[in-house]
Amino acid sequence: MKIAVDAMGGDFAPEQVVAGAIAAAKHLDCEVVLVGDQDKVQAELAKDPSWENLKISIHHTSDVIGMDEHPGAAVRRKKDSSIVVATRLVKEGHCDAVLSAGSTGAAVASALLGLGRIKGVDRPTIATPLPTAKGGVTLLLDSGANVDSKPHHLVQSALMGSIYYKYVFGTEQPRVGLLNIGEEETKGNEQALATYPLLQAMKFINFRGNAEGRDITKGTFDVVVCDGFVGNVVLKFAEGLAKTLIKLIKEAIKDGGVFAKLGALLLAPALKKMAKRVDAAEYGGAPLLGVDGCYIICHGSSNAKAIKSAIDVANECVKNNVLEHIKECVAEEAVSANE
Amino acid sequence: MKIAVDAMGGDFAPEQVVAGAIAAAKHLDCEVVLVGDQDKVQAELAKDPSWENLKISIHHTSDVIGMDEHPGAAVRRKKDSSIVVATRLVKEGHCDAVLSAGSTGAAVASALLGLGRIKGVDRPTIATPLPTAKGGVTLLLDSGANVDSKPHHLVQSALMGSIYYKYVFGTEQPRVGLLNIGEEETKGNEQALATYPLLQAMKFINFRGNAEGRDITKGTFDVVVCDGFVGNVVLKFAEGLAKTLIKLIKEAIKDGGVFAKLGALLLAPALKKMAKRVDAAEYGGAPLLGVDGCYIICHGSSNAKAIKSAIDVANECVKNNVLEHIKECVAEEAVSANE
Repeated sequence: MKIAVDAMGGDFAPEQVVAGAIAAAKHLDCEVVLVGDQDKVQAELAKDPSWENLKISIHHTSDVIGMDEHPGAAVRRKKDSSIVVATRLVKEGHCDAVLSAGSTGAAVASALLGLGRIKGVDRPTIATPLPTAKGGVTLLLDSGANVDSKPHHLVQSALMGSIYYKYVFGTEQPRVGLLNIGEEETKGNEQALATYPLLQAMKFINFRGNAEGRDITKGTFDVVVCDGFVGNVVLKFAEGLAKTLIKLIKEAIKDGGVFAKLGALLLAPALKKMAKRVDAAEYGGAPLLGVDGCYIICHGSSNAKAIKSAIDVANECVKNNVLEHIKECVAEEAVSANE
Repeated sequence: MKIAVDAMGGDFAPEQVVAGAIAAAKHLDCEVVLVGDQDKVQAELAKDPSWENLKISIHHTSDVIGMDEHPGAAVRRKKDSSIVVATRLVKEGHCDAVLSAGSTGAAVASALLGLGRIKGVDRPTIATPLPTAKGGVTLLLDSGANVDSKPHHLVQSALMGSIYYKYVFGTEQPRVGLLNIGEEETKGNEQALATYPLLQAMKFINFRGNAEGRDITKGTFDVVVCDGFVGNVVLKFAEGLAKTLIKLIKEAIKDGGVFAKLGALLLAPALKKMAKRVDAAEYGGAPLLGVDGCYIICHGSSNAKAIKSAIDVANECVKNNVLEHIKECVAEEAVSANE
């Protein structure tokens, strides 16, 4: 198995990406192909000479797509950019999965243009794993691939999310919720109202009704489905809220005098263990479901740990044949606008 | 000045509502009219005999609207319910403001049916204050009064939110953001794309472009405007996330041994001070803007502190003539679907 890693994508690329790849290669059995500027990647690899004993290779590319470029146009124009080449390696069968922490838009565009959609899927969807109060993970999707989705797009998301959850987290019948503003079937906007009965009618989906915002981290649903606009806002809100809380806690400790500082020191080990449970970097990657290949999207600010986790996710996806299972199930269920 | 308080609305009514009313009456100069079952309210008042020296009165009603009743139908049928009567007291000029921690749907319905909309406003909007990293407050609206809003509804929300912010928080030109999935003007769903130029064209609104989810608690915007579906999901998500984090921190302290417990004890005073800053109960009430009266909506689980804060908010609204300012400004700006 080979995993193509966009070595040039992300706020801390190539440094953190290469470090993450080395960390992953140390414990995984697959080969990591670093796609990017040979000299720059080599320079990062040289920082940890142990890499020479690992299954790591470099695939040189000369170009990079920046975070502020128009995704579609950049992917079409920059044929030798790291994300486009990494995607091509999968398309041509040289690699089994691809991951990138670069521009999400460019990743989605290169996946759509380079790999295409799975037959029967109209729109790809980003499935972001979120830690819950119960210790497990809830998959929030779509967390930003598409907006103004139609009800059948949400149903396709729910279906793909269920299959992903089943084969990656090993839960036989993942509990699916429709993100909404009330528990009752009669609540919601037009999109949610029209989606509810469609989800209810799907045999494969273990639909448990509406999920409210407060249910996302409660652990009562395994898969929560929503429009990419809402999912993206919720994810970024969580990110902002976490930063705000950490800032306020640090200020409180600083202003709290010697007792507060001592208390923080004593409490730190326990909190660090807890923080590990809710640290996004531990989950690392969000699969882009619905494209014809195993595609993992990482947060732009991914550190080495997040990249390593994302490579683990890609490895699990390939090992568990997630793509094949999704293809089979989508063909069987055939969810379309005409039904 | 008189403020009508729905004494029977909320998960902890009438106990916490009456306690909050007493706390507010102790420091405010206005009269608090407790609307509800006379015997029950009296029994709660009796717990703090000091109430007899305060400006508190009881307005008896025989009925209550439950959390699970259909709002519109219940408001029409239960003419003697606490929320309907409290609203009527404002309509008839006996009181200057009304507040309720009961069913939000019933509050919105009784406001619409009992007071009607301000001329020029198509839909009311709930403006929820959220604490920010910088110590101030960001107003998120609409946080759940309406879904599937049209662009001009969002513009009306932004206008009313700006006026409210200006007169209640004393900021001359509140910075307004449009909640979206990217900073660029070209990003977003159809609703956001169509709303952007309308906001830009409004003279009264200090529009600062798109706000992403992570900006909501950053303190870089004073007013963030969005569809009620998105606002409601974000608020409930914040609520759920806060509960999840507190649960995880408590578990971490419990499992962390004697050092962690000692650390928590030493750190507690500093954290309590910080928690006060982000405690929703400190902000208490969210004004329902756009109806022809001063209407404050409280969270269903409001405790006495939250009710007291909400009465403070109602007092500020009335004292600062927020309703008149909104009426004037809406008449001047005349935002409608036809423009």
